[in-house]
Amino acid sequence: MKIGAVDQVEAVPVEMDGASGVTMRVVIGEPQGAPNFVMRVFDVAPGGHSPHHSHGFEHEVFVLSGRGTFVEQGREETLAAGDVVFVPPDVVHQFRAAADEGLRFICVVPRA
Amino acid sequence: MKIGAVDQVEAVPVEMDGASGVTMRVVIGEPQGAPNFVMRVFDVAPGGHSPHHSHGFEHEVFVLSGRGTFVEQGREETLAAGDVVFVPPDVVHQFRAAADEGLRFICVVPRA
Repeated sequence: MKIGAVDQVEAVPVEMDGASGVTMRVVIGEPQGAPNFVMRVFDVAPGGHSPHHSHGFEHEVFVLSGRGTFVEQGREETLAAGDVVFVPPDVVHQFRAAADEGLRFICVVPRA
Repeated sequence: MKIGAVDQVEAVPVEMDGASGVTMRVVIGEPQGAPNFVMRVFDVAPGGHSPHHSHGFEHEVFVLSGRGTFVEQGREETLAAGDVVFVPPDVVHQFRAAADEGLRFICVVPRA
């Protein structure tokens, strides 16, 4: 089933501690009957960032547009459109947008 | 871990019966330690298509660029950049590129 265009899906602000300027669209998940994993699209405003945190599940990430930085256990790497990131479970990580440009990425997580 | 840019990953022709002009890049999978699901990026050449088939696992798809058609149990829908598609298990489906333009999309599947 075609869900539609990503921008037609409601963007919800991410209110977690440590998040700044982040919105999330759940584009494929429980309402669509996804049995195993959930696809979300995140927008990080210029200068914004996700929490610097860890959790017991993985992220599979594809950068759609913009520029930013990926932080993993103290290391920093630049991000641009077309970059792919795998965050294993229990690894401390953060996504940051550039000061002058936002960052949009897909992040797939297990459903459970 | 940043895997790198999608175009740095080797593109492998899809040799399945019914596939035409399709290449696949496995950008996150077993070699990266992905425990639950695998992220692939497909390129379909102008006029090309994936097999018209079904299987017992789902697809979670995000169209990155180009134009094409999604066929599901006889229904056809147009595809363009930013479109999201969920293919449930056991549903007959096909991805076709436009005659004059290729189609690139992410397709996530369970690892098992």
